[in-house]
Amino acid sequence: AEIYGSTAGFWTYGSLGTQMKHQWEHLWREYFLLLHPNYHEIEDCVILPQHVFQSSGHLEHFTDPLTECTKCHNRFKVDHLLEAVSGKSSSGLTPKAFDTLLAKHNVVCPSCHGSLTPVRYFNMMFPVEVGAVNSNTMYLRPESAQSVYLAFKKEFEAHRRQFPLGIATIGHVFRNEISPRQGFFRLREFSQAELQIFFNPSEIKKHPLFSHVKSYTLHMSIQGKKKTLTCAEAVKELQLPQFYVYHMAKVQQFYHHVLHVPESKFRLRELGDNERAFYNKIHFDIELDLGVLGGFVEVGGIHYRSDYDLGGHQKGSGKKLEVSLDEKKFIPHVLELSFGVDRNILALLDLFYREDSERTYFAFPSVVAPIQVAVFPLVNKDKLPEISRKIFDALYGSFRCFYDDSGSVGRRYRRQDEIGTPYDITVDFETITDDTITVRFRDSMKQERVKISDLKTFLRQD
Amino acid sequence: AEIYGSTAGFWTYGSLGTQMKHQWEHLWREYFLLLHPNYHEIEDCVILPQHVFQSSGHLEHFTDPLTECTKCHNRFKVDHLLEAVSGKSSSGLTPKAFDTLLAKHNVVCPSCHGSLTPVRYFNMMFPVEVGAVNSNTMYLRPESAQSVYLAFKKEFEAHRRQFPLGIATIGHVFRNEISPRQGFFRLREFSQAELQIFFNPSEIKKHPLFSHVKSYTLHMSIQGKKKTLTCAEAVKELQLPQFYVYHMAKVQQFYHHVLHVPESKFRLRELGDNERAFYNKIHFDIELDLGVLGGFVEVGGIHYRSDYDLGGHQKGSGKKLEVSLDEKKFIPHVLELSFGVDRNILALLDLFYREDSERTYFAFPSVVAPIQVAVFPLVNKDKLPEISRKIFDALYGSFRCFYDDSGSVGRRYRRQDEIGTPYDITVDFETITDDTITVRFRDSMKQERVKISDLKTFLRQD
Repeated sequence: AEIYGSTAGFWTYGSLGTQMKHQWEHLWREYFLLLHPNYHEIEDCVILPQHVFQSSGHLEHFTDPLTECTKCHNRFKVDHLLEAVSGKSSSGLTPKAFDTLLAKHNVVCPSCHGSLTPVRYFNMMFPVEVGAVNSNTMYLRPESAQSVYLAFKKEFEAHRRQFPLGIATIGHVFRNEISPRQGFFRLREFSQAELQIFFNPSEIKKHPLFSHVKSYTLHMSIQGKKKTLTCAEAVKELQLPQFYVYHMAKVQQFYHHVLHVPESKFRLRELGDNERAFYNKIHFDIELDLGVLGGFVEVGGIHYRSDYDLGGHQKGSGKKLEVSLDEKKFIPHVLELSFGVDRNILALLDLFYREDSERTYFAFPSVVAPIQVAVFPLVNKDKLPEISRKIFDALYGSFRCFYDDSGSVGRRYRRQDEIGTPYDITVDFETITDDTITVRFRDSMKQERVKISDLKTFLRQD
Repeated sequence: AEIYGSTAGFWTYGSLGTQMKHQWEHLWREYFLLLHPNYHEIEDCVILPQHVFQSSGHLEHFTDPLTECTKCHNRFKVDHLLEAVSGKSSSGLTPKAFDTLLAKHNVVCPSCHGSLTPVRYFNMMFPVEVGAVNSNTMYLRPESAQSVYLAFKKEFEAHRRQFPLGIATIGHVFRNEISPRQGFFRLREFSQAELQIFFNPSEIKKHPLFSHVKSYTLHMSIQGKKKTLTCAEAVKELQLPQFYVYHMAKVQQFYHHVLHVPESKFRLRELGDNERAFYNKIHFDIELDLGVLGGFVEVGGIHYRSDYDLGGHQKGSGKKLEVSLDEKKFIPHVLELSFGVDRNILALLDLFYREDSERTYFAFPSVVAPIQVAVFPLVNKDKLPEISRKIFDALYGSFRCFYDDSGSVGRRYRRQDEIGTPYDITVDFETITDDTITVRFRDSMKQERVKISDLKTFLRQD
């Protein structure tokens, strides 16, 4: 709503950004849902009942410490204030302990130097009052995972009570961040792509396809130190279960093989005991090294959440979520693969942005480029537009295409470079005589003549 | 959140429903975005600033008349109360006029017979308080169209100031319905797929491709009467502009040619002056005849909204949204093609549901079926599973597939019939000798032997 002045933490995707976001989501689905025939996707509402968040712990724990200026009434995140004066981050303290720290550092209001109120915790969920008849407090979901836990029982029955059962969902989530920062990185409304894998905890030490990844090298950061280990080594040295490590490998391969993120820009960082949620038994963040944010930042996570979620909902709802299998009763455990979609889009913009002496462009791999192929007639006469249109129409079902006939061809190249189009096709007078066109490559700016009949195969193979 | 007891007006799509919904959205995008090279898609937040809804009129007009029982404090939609006693629907009256009607019919509380409070209008938008620092009232959008009007200026510039400019968006919207009814049909959170077409009002009487549709017959309902006219006749007899009629034809073709909805189940109903919003100069609802809801119901609409929306936002934001073209200044007009996604899914379930003496099934056309092809090994031995897996893997990239090796083949057929899978493929002992498999057709239950190498082509052509 930029024409009304923007609100921090809310962004709109324009038409090119929407293409990229959809394409990222499509690649994510294709990759993660195909990891196992029993991985599926659901779609839920974003408004969920209060009960859900009592059981999940969000009502009690999904909070930020807050203080208010007694003079100008601006409010501030206490951990940000403390980080600014002490350079250290401090989280999870009691309000009293925060008060003591603020006093120790003589912190006053950064806007007007007024004194600050005692610290209190502020819940980051958005409440919504539903119904005029018996109004009912519900909440905008702060994570999509809860939607999946709520659906577990029904999906487990529908998919014939088999483990592992993966349930993915992609959708909007909402957090009332006190001070959204870093532009597109910390948002109040954003998209998550999450896969919750329910499994029998007695099977965690194995994965039937582990042999496929055992020699694959993981790039990790453990206790602040860079560490590269094969999957087999990670199981042995770090005592991580095979089922977990297999999915670490698959996540890393998604970034390298599907999104073409360079190896050096990716790592899996193990969180320390004081950083991770108490219910996460194992927690690695998925991090990418982004110039615009000055280093490695979190774009997702691999969380072994144990039986915390289903256990909480079983207790809170009074409905049995435990299952009976092979004469044993147990609450399924959850491995969560969680991705912030918008952070991933920001990452692609950052990682593939290029500047040189004559141009700026995005070196997007073709799979994520908003436009993959641009088609130009050299001039708007002598049948060149007709031939160009024919080529455009033939490519349209297979590639994201754009037609441009305005301005010099050089200018048209630059326009496509700026939005990251990998291939420009020009139809010229030679085309009329020999049915070839020019393919111009964005990164090298080199050109090659290709037979029209070979074009699709050529573009797919490049 | 069924395990906590459901909340009226909120539904979750399970894994099969999600496949159908995504497929419907995919077909919608492919069809409507390809109507013109300058039709694009954006994605926006669902939380929007209050200003937006001041300008759009929603804060003032998006209301329902409400009364409360003075004894039990239940609240009721006044028009529903009146319809129950008088059989007539009455809308748009002043609170006073409603009070008079309620008194005339001696209406009391349907729950406890208590007396009712004076009628007041209740706004159906959900407010959301954003930010701990200077909290700010925003709203969950009640329609996705506003997101597009807000983005118009930027998209118009980005797409080089050309008309028509179409901007689509698919996403969740929210209405605090006082009494959500008819199950899946009237929801509090639902998905809209909308295409807003901005155009130069001086061009409304023509469409460059009108000759393609001029002999195409539209199925309409005008002033309560069935009417079939060709597009050319509709322009002449009903004095509808070509630009509008062209899009009517395209909407009808989407239902018949893409979704395979039978001709008799579809109509375009013109709304009377007292039914349509005052800013809609021309308004046809898209209606489908659904058994479960007892007749034709609205699943979408074709709205000529004139310059109401951009005019309102220009006034409210103080930003120029008028454009200069050919030395004329004007506010672009809007033709809106609006679809309720969930209503369309409900319609597919209703229209394609079949019951006969031996089975119940969904006769979904392959394009919308959640699963298109099921693959069965006749028995789980003698290499049949291996061959079946190979066939499954070969089909997976091109079709939505399911593998089933449990229970008798007859039982596997029935399971697929129930979820509407059009083709079942069985691998048997003949397959080993002659590389053929059986294709069994859901609707006729007939079977045909097909060469494995011809299978993809066969399934595509059927």
